[in-house]
Amino acid sequence: MEVCAGLDIGGTNTVFGLVGRDGELIAESQLSTTAEPELGDYLSGLAAGLRDLLGDRGHELLGIGIGAPNGNFYDGTIAHAPNLPWAGVIPLASMLAERFEGLPVRLTNDANAAALGEQLYGGARGLRDFLLITLGTGVGSGLVANGELILGHDGFAGELGHVVVDWAGRACACGRSGCLETYASVPGFVRTAREKLAASPVASLLRDTPELTGHTISAAAQAGDALALEVFEDTGRHLGRALANTVALTSPERIFVFGGLARAGALILEPTQRHLDENTLNIFAGKARLEVSHLMDRNAAILGAAALAWEHAVGARR
Amino acid sequence: MEVCAGLDIGGTNTVFGLVGRDGELIAESQLSTTAEPELGDYLSGLAAGLRDLLGDRGHELLGIGIGAPNGNFYDGTIAHAPNLPWAGVIPLASMLAERFEGLPVRLTNDANAAALGEQLYGGARGLRDFLLITLGTGVGSGLVANGELILGHDGFAGELGHVVVDWAGRACACGRSGCLETYASVPGFVRTAREKLAASPVASLLRDTPELTGHTISAAAQAGDALALEVFEDTGRHLGRALANTVALTSPERIFVFGGLARAGALILEPTQRHLDENTLNIFAGKARLEVSHLMDRNAAILGAAALAWEHAVGARR
Repeated sequence: MEVCAGLDIGGTNTVFGLVGRDGELIAESQLSTTAEPELGDYLSGLAAGLRDLLGDRGHELLGIGIGAPNGNFYDGTIAHAPNLPWAGVIPLASMLAERFEGLPVRLTNDANAAALGEQLYGGARGLRDFLLITLGTGVGSGLVANGELILGHDGFAGELGHVVVDWAGRACACGRSGCLETYASVPGFVRTAREKLAASPVASLLRDTPELTGHTISAAAQAGDALALEVFEDTGRHLGRALANTVALTSPERIFVFGGLARAGALILEPTQRHLDENTLNIFAGKARLEVSHLMDRNAAILGAAALAWEHAVGARR
Repeated sequence: MEVCAGLDIGGTNTVFGLVGRDGELIAESQLSTTAEPELGDYLSGLAAGLRDLLGDRGHELLGIGIGAPNGNFYDGTIAHAPNLPWAGVIPLASMLAERFEGLPVRLTNDANAAALGEQLYGGARGLRDFLLITLGTGVGSGLVANGELILGHDGFAGELGHVVVDWAGRACACGRSGCLETYASVPGFVRTAREKLAASPVASLLRDTPELTGHTISAAAQAGDALALEVFEDTGRHLGRALANTVALTSPERIFVFGGLARAGALILEPTQRHLDENTLNIFAGKARLEVSHLMDRNAAILGAAALAWEHAVGARR
């Protein structure tokens, strides 16, 4: 059977798998991103792992797609990724292609890969204009318009996490202030809870919670805890406002929410949708609907990276 | 010779002309948008005017492009345009096509038409990712990504004027607060001058100016008037910040400035570029360059609308 490989390179682990044209995950595996200090050894391990998956089952590998932080589609490099062990600009796509006799290898950042996965295998099938946002350790986005991923002239488009929502807001790791990421990432969300607990003596389940995490705050909100619900309300306000501005510029039909905070479901969707609707220009009223990614419970990272290979290396255009 | 017609429908006048494939304006004319109270009579007058231009010079009319406020590319309608004499949703493209034996007629909003004009005949030739912003009575934008105009799922994308730059800011005619348009349109710019004059007794040439307009404020700034220069600084701050957020999401290679305020040249470009650069994520640093539209001194409205016809009715794809 014809397959593409999807690889998701994270700071700790690299997960990879073989995916058929219709999104069937045929086999998957993983290896440590950091165990081999030399990039060449890591790549050799990765190539060996992929060949193991292929085995002698008669699959034909047509292409490889990679999702990686700071991945650039245009030149196939990973550039200065703060959470990966390799410094500088790494021509990862071409280095991996060398190990597979010049097989087509495409690379992009993880949010773009997720958007492609949603388009090929998830809730965005048939949609030409949509946005996918990731609310995890950071905040990222993949924008599809006119049916195509918008990469920008340099391959770095989609940095919704660094849209500023408050010009006098929280300091961001990027050196600026008030970036959406400082509020709508999981760490930003937890920080909001911590600040609310410190600012007021109001009773809250969170005061007895040994560790504040996205999970524990969600559980408290689920149990009706007022302070935890306020954390979602504040996060939804920042996110909804940023999305209202995004809608004014690009008018997507649907907005998919992905990543850790998306697991909170209606707790995050409801306030975000409300603030989005309240801040949307009348001609867009009620149009852009938020929903949780349909790939959240599947192996989304592998599917998204494989979608990149099917879409851009093989050319399985819908 | 093969020509397309370009029509720009404004609140007062409709200007129209015949344009060759390479952007040569062959003939032009205009008529009042409001003189005939009936839409049918207006359209008959417009058709007669176009036929007059064609005359018996042997031109072959291949298509008609229309730029109009609230124009929607997908269905060829003008919807609830506040400054046009026709209420409701007007299927203008099909009504005009009927008067030209079904000739292809395409319609979009004026900022999108200007972006297409820039792409086919102006400074954006060869660029696949750019933004054009109009700073006039209102603020609008046309976004081109992957070489194509981004219309959004409903045809209304590009409303940069209604991106909010200050959530506690000026009331906007759209019913919300702090829209970019309330600061970076010509009326918003004049309002900033008026507010500064009222807020401080500092000496300024503008105190002796009989009428505050974009022109008179520019002239004072040109003469070194500190208060007038501050008006440009404030306007550039709001605009530069909104553009920094736009760059994070779409990463255009160039940003063209069009419309009344663009005539101020470096006076508006310099502070806007500075605030854009200061507020841009490091990976975008120094990339998105602002410049004045190359069509400002040509008949841009007609060229833009004709570009729409050449691009989407005839299919002169580059």
